[in-house]
Amino acid sequence: MATGLTDAAPATAVSQEELDALDAHWRAANYLAVGQIYLLDGNPLLTEPLRAEHVKPRLLGHWGTSPGLNLVHTHLNRVVRNRDLDLICVWGPGHGGPAVLANSWLDGTYTQTYPDITRDGTGMGRLFRQFSFPGGVPSHVAPETPGSIHEGGELGYSLAHAYGAAFDNPGLVVACVIGDGEAETGPLATSWHGNKFLDPVHDGAVLPVLHLNGYKIANPTVLARMPEAELDELLRGYGHDPIHVTGDDPARVHRAMAAALDTALDRIAALQRAAREEGSAERPRWPVIVLRTPKGWTGPAEVDGLPVEGTWRAHQVPLAEVRTNPVHLRQLEEWLRSYRPEELFDADGRPREQVLACLPEGERRLGANPHANGGLLLRALPLRDLDGFAVPVDKPGAVLHEPTRVLGRYLEQVMADTAERRDFRIVGPDETASNRLDAVYQATGKAWQAEELPVDEHLDRHGRVMEILSEHTCQGWLEGYLLTGRHGLFSCYEAFVHIVDSMANQHIKWLRTTRRLPWRRPIASLNYLLTSHVWRQDHNGFSHQDPGFIDHILNKSPEAVRVYLPPDTNTLLSVAEHVLNSRDYVNVVVAGKQPCLDWLTMDQARAHCARGAGMWEFAGTDDGTREPDVVLACAGDVPTQETLAAAQLLRRHLPRLAVRVVNVVDLARLLPHEEHPHGMTDAEYDALFTPDKPVIFAYHGYPWLIHRLAYRRTGHAQLHVRGYKEIGTTTTPFDMVVRNDLDRYRLVMDVIDRTPGLAVTAAPLRQRMEDTRLRHHAWIREYGTDLPEVADWRWEG
Amino acid sequence: MATGLTDAAPATAVSQEELDALDAHWRAANYLAVGQIYLLDGNPLLTEPLRAEHVKPRLLGHWGTSPGLNLVHTHLNRVVRNRDLDLICVWGPGHGGPAVLANSWLDGTYTQTYPDITRDGTGMGRLFRQFSFPGGVPSHVAPETPGSIHEGGELGYSLAHAYGAAFDNPGLVVACVIGDGEAETGPLATSWHGNKFLDPVHDGAVLPVLHLNGYKIANPTVLARMPEAELDELLRGYGHDPIHVTGDDPARVHRAMAAALDTALDRIAALQRAAREEGSAERPRWPVIVLRTPKGWTGPAEVDGLPVEGTWRAHQVPLAEVRTNPVHLRQLEEWLRSYRPEELFDADGRPREQVLACLPEGERRLGANPHANGGLLLRALPLRDLDGFAVPVDKPGAVLHEPTRVLGRYLEQVMADTAERRDFRIVGPDETASNRLDAVYQATGKAWQAEELPVDEHLDRHGRVMEILSEHTCQGWLEGYLLTGRHGLFSCYEAFVHIVDSMANQHIKWLRTTRRLPWRRPIASLNYLLTSHVWRQDHNGFSHQDPGFIDHILNKSPEAVRVYLPPDTNTLLSVAEHVLNSRDYVNVVVAGKQPCLDWLTMDQARAHCARGAGMWEFAGTDDGTREPDVVLACAGDVPTQETLAAAQLLRRHLPRLAVRVVNVVDLARLLPHEEHPHGMTDAEYDALFTPDKPVIFAYHGYPWLIHRLAYRRTGHAQLHVRGYKEIGTTTTPFDMVVRNDLDRYRLVMDVIDRTPGLAVTAAPLRQRMEDTRLRHHAWIREYGTDLPEVADWRWEG
Repeated sequence: MATGLTDAAPATAVSQEELDALDAHWRAANYLAVGQIYLLDGNPLLTEPLRAEHVKPRLLGHWGTSPGLNLVHTHLNRVVRNRDLDLICVWGPGHGGPAVLANSWLDGTYTQTYPDITRDGTGMGRLFRQFSFPGGVPSHVAPETPGSIHEGGELGYSLAHAYGAAFDNPGLVVACVIGDGEAETGPLATSWHGNKFLDPVHDGAVLPVLHLNGYKIANPTVLARMPEAELDELLRGYGHDPIHVTGDDPARVHRAMAAALDTALDRIAALQRAAREEGSAERPRWPVIVLRTPKGWTGPAEVDGLPVEGTWRAHQVPLAEVRTNPVHLRQLEEWLRSYRPEELFDADGRPREQVLACLPEGERRLGANPHANGGLLLRALPLRDLDGFAVPVDKPGAVLHEPTRVLGRYLEQVMADTAERRDFRIVGPDETASNRLDAVYQATGKAWQAEELPVDEHLDRHGRVMEILSEHTCQGWLEGYLLTGRHGLFSCYEAFVHIVDSMANQHIKWLRTTRRLPWRRPIASLNYLLTSHVWRQDHNGFSHQDPGFIDHILNKSPEAVRVYLPPDTNTLLSVAEHVLNSRDYVNVVVAGKQPCLDWLTMDQARAHCARGAGMWEFAGTDDGTREPDVVLACAGDVPTQETLAAAQLLRRHLPRLAVRVVNVVDLARLLPHEEHPHGMTDAEYDALFTPDKPVIFAYHGYPWLIHRLAYRRTGHAQLHVRGYKEIGTTTTPFDMVVRNDLDRYRLVMDVIDRTPGLAVTAAPLRQRMEDTRLRHHAWIREYGTDLPEVADWRWEG
Repeated sequence: MATGLTDAAPATAVSQEELDALDAHWRAANYLAVGQIYLLDGNPLLTEPLRAEHVKPRLLGHWGTSPGLNLVHTHLNRVVRNRDLDLICVWGPGHGGPAVLANSWLDGTYTQTYPDITRDGTGMGRLFRQFSFPGGVPSHVAPETPGSIHEGGELGYSLAHAYGAAFDNPGLVVACVIGDGEAETGPLATSWHGNKFLDPVHDGAVLPVLHLNGYKIANPTVLARMPEAELDELLRGYGHDPIHVTGDDPARVHRAMAAALDTALDRIAALQRAAREEGSAERPRWPVIVLRTPKGWTGPAEVDGLPVEGTWRAHQVPLAEVRTNPVHLRQLEEWLRSYRPEELFDADGRPREQVLACLPEGERRLGANPHANGGLLLRALPLRDLDGFAVPVDKPGAVLHEPTRVLGRYLEQVMADTAERRDFRIVGPDETASNRLDAVYQATGKAWQAEELPVDEHLDRHGRVMEILSEHTCQGWLEGYLLTGRHGLFSCYEAFVHIVDSMANQHIKWLRTTRRLPWRRPIASLNYLLTSHVWRQDHNGFSHQDPGFIDHILNKSPEAVRVYLPPDTNTLLSVAEHVLNSRDYVNVVVAGKQPCLDWLTMDQARAHCARGAGMWEFAGTDDGTREPDVVLACAGDVPTQETLAAAQLLRRHLPRLAVRVVNVVDLARLLPHEEHPHGMTDAEYDALFTPDKPVIFAYHGYPWLIHRLAYRRTGHAQLHVRGYKEIGTTTTPFDMVVRNDLDRYRLVMDVIDRTPGLAVTAAPLRQRMEDTRLRHHAWIREYGTDLPEVADWRWEG
């Protein structure tokens, strides 16, 4: 490996004294990282010879990436201090937890956050012991780690998080270490293009540090094994200007890294100046640092005769048998002592002055920057009264509106009211207009820094609608934006939000953990608006039909997840207001963009949404004083329409049947109270659904989800659910519900089949329903449209 | 836009006659595409003036991409014919269904597949009418489309599919049209690196055609709005050599495209020759064609005064009101007539000779290439008898093996036995060794065409283990490989397989559809081996703990999905043999890599797996002649161990309690027989689980899944499930089960709490269990390890 190469022209001279201090800090961080992986609390300073009982019984963690992360952290400290930078760092190889924890302990933020872990020998012992130890701290850069907004366990999202953090933070620099393993993932590979969306005027800077240590778990990495010229082409093709730092000689690498960071930050400042002061509209070519250092650098060169440093063998724990193999124990002690701890820490274990010399102070410390604890900076959104946006509903089921189009006007106002504050963004994979939210373009445009043509519409160098055909990037941007204390909405086709299933997992895991950490302030919820849903994929068909994201979300920690299915326009507005005001949740809102009958006035919608589930008296024929004969329940806009149409048929044809209509907006209401904070008590549930009457439940998604939510309820044996059964194609809206047995006629047949006493008396009606379904099939094959009586249906009470 | 530029040096002269024929074919395809979007069957050849009643009542489909796809298809026809190429094409913008359907009709494969759609005026009318019409064909390049292995509804996977198709098909060229929208997705962005894994000796060639038509749904695309030099850097950085074709003048573009394809194919031939005949070991710089033509090319230039051709407005249906707006109707007629249909089709609607001149014949036609109907080429794997790999089990629960390590030896043999055939591959995100399958490296290496270093192990230019840190790429490669008639296995960390949730969705949708198409021959199943599972994430913790992929999969079409949870090594072998022999499924196998007690001999394992769920008589204390007092059920390796340990405690401390132990391998057995082909009848279920006795079910994943599967069973009210409750961190294996209430002591407490008559008599035992759990907590905080009695536990009967 070449030693200490950089093509950075050192902007500032770095004195030998400064370099020595950087090296001292780096060695201290490395020492602390090794200590965490290996040691209990008995001998943290190696004041006595290392013995097996000083070593943890289970050796867990990732050494390989740690020295690289320590190098970057050390040098970021320097530039933050020298330039008084407002800077946070996203640690892509977040499994290198020992490194970031070590740095947090060194800069004092760890002790500030966890006073028990003092910055002395006692605290150092505790720091060591707690790492990857039951009851201690996780092995990754976890929510528990001060200064972090990124866990790094599931790789791929660091750079998108970094961009999200930088948007609308013009004074912030977001450094982002990208491992060469992570760089192979799809989400990371496309998130380089974030620079086509970063506004050099209103946004901060992202400084990627591509760390090529050459190996993943057991394999070389693709980017480390391309000719450097080819890698440079790739990075320039991504719109970046690479600066290389390569080496394995610490002294030379320190010099090179300091110069590279100075060069990069000077360039960033110049590019920002050009855009902000000189009005340059050219897309900047932002710098990227390519750092090539050995995996497991400064660790054991060989173990048991096999090379380790600089190879994949350094990935986790290079010496695996320290407690049983005296050679390994000796190697570990030599390794630890190679950092010369006595030069780094005083007799009490406090870091010496030289070690701390590179550190910034107060909130400038990477572990203490408030952007990395975004709730500290969060301001409530200025939301207007919904009455100004509501649609008038003189009588239910008479007039149609497109729910998302009306929501768009509400969001337009939010955009307008945050024009100065710039703390609200909408992200989506080029679906804002398709999802009929395009009113927002009256208030802001679509962020765009690439080339423009006269025919383009709503592109805006300073816009706050973010559209890229990558759900991963949308999600990553929004997460980064929320985690740094702002607000937002992700509008997505329902089927394709599964693309970010695993990202949603990780964000919910983050929230579940931070909700238990008092020092982590609540952040704005991550709000999904899922539209273009399963029942209306007229242009696309089967591949676009999947309502299973709800199931996925409801598997996660109940305290952090909410699912809403507003049945009409005003309920969508009410839900939207609620989720935009909420904190620390993942909210999933499923709503149609197609014209949908209005059922509730704004006041009724507010009341209904506050209850989460309730009777629709106007639609039922029970008088509320006695139990109904049957309950028609529904959740979702299309199922609600079919249910109401079924209720109307029953009212007309079986006028003496007492039918109750129940609509569910907040799906978690169905769960037991003990399992979800929104869950109904059994008494509430029985009062609404009855303990023993048949319930025909028309549900938006997979029907078994309702059973999984309600299986403990008294009346569960009487619960009959219709929903999407994975039957779909390119066809009409009504044909879709017929194919999945969710249509009004089938619901009426279900009522007849399940309600005692109707089998004989209602047989003619049942036959009529069956006939109508057959007529539908014949009609649609002939004309390709829905029966007129369905297409033009309105509620007549 | 520049007209007809290409930097390709035309390798073969293209005559004007040939160009005219290409244009005729292209115009015919365009005419047919427009006809499908707009017309019913009444006037396909425009033999009379177009009237509103000739037009579909619902206008659905995507015009924008269609002319570009038609251009590529037309020109691929030419080179296939001229060079007698074995070539298939992956149509990334698969929503351009009308284009590929048009081409299939023109080359005769459509009529061959669907005889009713004849290649004449009558058939043309039917082709038009059926498109996006209820009961007809979907709007995308769907499984129903001859010659396709790619649906293209969910964007991102075309290039990975193309690589998968090319692996081990040395004679095949896989063209791949990548839309500039799709190119923004993460999965696509990283799949360019497939060229570092493509062996020019044993694999075929992939020829990407990056189609820049400039727009997504409503936005410009990133790649179309970068300076061309920057785009070239990106593509060269990806390892490709770009050839440009740019223009909007058809005549010039035809010439340029013909030259570009000739150049590209000449280069491919030369690169293959160098590797195959001259032994070159250099990684080839494969060509990529960058095709820049207008979106909606040849469609209406303006509609209602707004520009359409060459803009995003051409994305779907450019003229939206044809049935009601006479101006639109006239524009549509002009548009259709602009292709001069009378020159293209004879009076009977048959394509004229000039139109067909560019077409290849027989199986060379893109719609008829057997690689695109892979089942035609599929050969059963040569699987050895499992007895040669089984572990000896003298008595249950006495000895430990690592199940995946033993499986690795079986897979090694499969690799060895397919060394000549080359039709089996293993893919994974650098986890083959981590998942302990590394025995396979005795038979083959890891595919790798990038740089090598002496320290590397098992890298192999001709290897059939594919490792890249991108689950998307792994999945895409494997899908492409299977769809073209080969076999494989995807080994993945359990939590991170969620990364491909949506890809699995799409593959299952594909299988569900192809299973109903008699002409589509069955292909090998897509087999997931999920290991490094939720209960054993000692190094990583919470972010790596998610068993929800099972839930996700079980939401999909029952006929195509299977989930197996083998409890030990021999059952894993039996399951592996079964899934490798199966066809047209997605099989999910969850198995541990950590040492696991052996329970069953190979014969017992075979019998148990064949049943899918069954009593473990050795473990229970009921004698089989009467109903037990309680059933301990389990699914998954860790839950099985805890259940057996609980059974042993009960046997010792409550010897008169009749306990039945049931193990479930095949999760779908729990479903009703009517809902899943593997589901038990109620009689079977009741015989196994009893209709009314308490069942304490220890399950690998989210406990509510078991309820969702079994809620209809008679004894459901007595079913009590323990599983993963989304509680996790970096801790010991036993601490994980304790935190989630799945541990042996909790299971014994559950038995006491739920079995009538035990509350008083077993109170002391219950207290002892409680005390042991407390002792666990104290021990682990002190020592960081599990209680010795747990760590060393063996079954003693």
